[in-house]
Amino acid sequence: MSSRYQVAELEAFTSAIFRTVGVKPDHADIVGKRLVEADLRGRTGHGLIRVEPYVQRIEAGGVNLDPDIRILHETPVSAHFDGDNGMGQVVMTMAAEVAIAKAEAVGMAWVGTVHSNHAGAAGIYPAMAAKRGLIAMYFAVANANGMPPWGGIEPILGTNPIAIALPAGDGIPFLLDIATTVASHGTIKVVAQAGEQMPVGWVADADGNPITDPTKANEGFLLPIGGYKGAGLNIAIGLLAGAMNGAAFGKTVVDHRKHLAVPTNTGQAMLVMRSDLMLPPEEVLASIDAHLEQLRSSRTTSGERVRLPGDGAHAAEVENLQIGIPLPDQLRHSLNELAARLGVVTQLD
Amino acid sequence: MSSRYQVAELEAFTSAIFRTVGVKPDHADIVGKRLVEADLRGRTGHGLIRVEPYVQRIEAGGVNLDPDIRILHETPVSAHFDGDNGMGQVVMTMAAEVAIAKAEAVGMAWVGTVHSNHAGAAGIYPAMAAKRGLIAMYFAVANANGMPPWGGIEPILGTNPIAIALPAGDGIPFLLDIATTVASHGTIKVVAQAGEQMPVGWVADADGNPITDPTKANEGFLLPIGGYKGAGLNIAIGLLAGAMNGAAFGKTVVDHRKHLAVPTNTGQAMLVMRSDLMLPPEEVLASIDAHLEQLRSSRTTSGERVRLPGDGAHAAEVENLQIGIPLPDQLRHSLNELAARLGVVTQLD
Repeated sequence: MSSRYQVAELEAFTSAIFRTVGVKPDHADIVGKRLVEADLRGRTGHGLIRVEPYVQRIEAGGVNLDPDIRILHETPVSAHFDGDNGMGQVVMTMAAEVAIAKAEAVGMAWVGTVHSNHAGAAGIYPAMAAKRGLIAMYFAVANANGMPPWGGIEPILGTNPIAIALPAGDGIPFLLDIATTVASHGTIKVVAQAGEQMPVGWVADADGNPITDPTKANEGFLLPIGGYKGAGLNIAIGLLAGAMNGAAFGKTVVDHRKHLAVPTNTGQAMLVMRSDLMLPPEEVLASIDAHLEQLRSSRTTSGERVRLPGDGAHAAEVENLQIGIPLPDQLRHSLNELAARLGVVTQLD
Repeated sequence: MSSRYQVAELEAFTSAIFRTVGVKPDHADIVGKRLVEADLRGRTGHGLIRVEPYVQRIEAGGVNLDPDIRILHETPVSAHFDGDNGMGQVVMTMAAEVAIAKAEAVGMAWVGTVHSNHAGAAGIYPAMAAKRGLIAMYFAVANANGMPPWGGIEPILGTNPIAIALPAGDGIPFLLDIATTVASHGTIKVVAQAGEQMPVGWVADADGNPITDPTKANEGFLLPIGGYKGAGLNIAIGLLAGAMNGAAFGKTVVDHRKHLAVPTNTGQAMLVMRSDLMLPPEEVLASIDAHLEQLRSSRTTSGERVRLPGDGAHAAEVENLQIGIPLPDQLRHSLNELAARLGVVTQLD
């Protein structure tokens, strides 16, 4: 069971909750926008379901409510942001906006963050760039570990995601948003709540034997996509988003759901570039459109069109903008309870 | 059985073969260097084993022996190279050198190629940048298709590789070099020659049933790493290296081992950036070293150190520089036969 809500309604509700616990109004607005965007595009694992855990960290003193978010070092093609332990969405939104402005000015840019926090769905930042006609890649150190390096048994790597967006001309933009592990802690929790078993390949014990009981997932390790390949990509992301920025990676990663009062020193990195660095703008957008359409219209067993990365999110956005964003009743109840406890007047009916 | 050879000996031998079939001396030298580099670093699938197929394409008229390799469009942070159907190693070496020079000058750069050809092991180009203390990523459209998009049954995607290199301070640099399919045509051929079966997960038929007989691999499709995740990454690479450059991607890809006389219009792309865009140079290199060492020394069942991406290639390079690069007898014989047929005086004893 779920009810549907307009974007503005959910943004106002979410912002009100964060303002009430002390987040500055402009920051609370940004966090609200980013979380609602995720639900709007069907990425529910990084939407309003995150409000309560974020509030818990804020109430525990784990987040700086009056951060001095600033650029530590800058060149025409780069900026290193100190998030000063502010809300991750605020830090990354500021960093993405600077990267977009620099890329528009000089062709391409790289931004990195240190002392940031969990910033939500990886895809939303490159999607911001793609909406401006730019190409972007995003890399983040995940906020909990659960996977060893390939050949090891010490879980000092997280789900480290990568997201890549390319703009389209008349078609739907390409947006890849993937963890480099097969499953995430969130997907495992969903399976556990449904009382189901995990497929082989999600989690294995130290001897490599599959674990399929989701309630025993903590006795094993998350598995990377493609074995040593995904494990290597995971480390590359950690180096680019963590080591290169002076942010946490490996043993210094703080589990943000367990250690509520400890700053996470999260690191993110983002590349933005003009799509017309090689070909004239109309030509490159037509080329991307044509290739994506060729893939979508390629043969399938069912005769249905192939769904590409970003197509599902785009379809959800189109539908949800028309008829509202669905919120499961359980989430709505817990958000209303949270709001009531905090003294927020509005409720989601 | 194999014999070992010094780098200079193999480079001279390889260059002599390419000169004899009409490749310009300076181009033949570059192709020789890149192929020997691959064998030196243990990437034998992209080493001298490629000499004969390259010669076949040249003899069939599939490669332009006097190419006008030039920059079509350039900005301070980018260059679009027209390879004019020259040897891929030559085109990509020139492109990588320009990317490195631009990144050293302005902080970062992106280069792309059109009308290029197969350029060997993906990792060698970012490794060139890492040796100069730079960070690099490389993307290529593979020279044959064999995988459908996720959900489809039309094999219009290749093994599209990604390679990522980061420099180290005192330690071994990080070098990831992976296809985005679980197996490649080359690895399947090796299994077939050994008379062995393929593991489940390499190849499947249109209904998703695994094919494990390598002689029947052509009846099925290559599988991506991590299901829809690797399939999406594969498309992102094709867009960046193919669509963005006006190079082949999807149905326009030419199988370079089957259609020897047809230009491939191969596309590659490479990002190069200074490693000190965020932190001071000593600090970032020390940070990378420390993180890689933490991963290498993390716990294992055997007590042995964890091997990270690039460690195996580095160990092979150190050993092969000392005692020579091993060439299997079978490869040596076929290279000597090829040399004799072409009238090259030198032989590999």
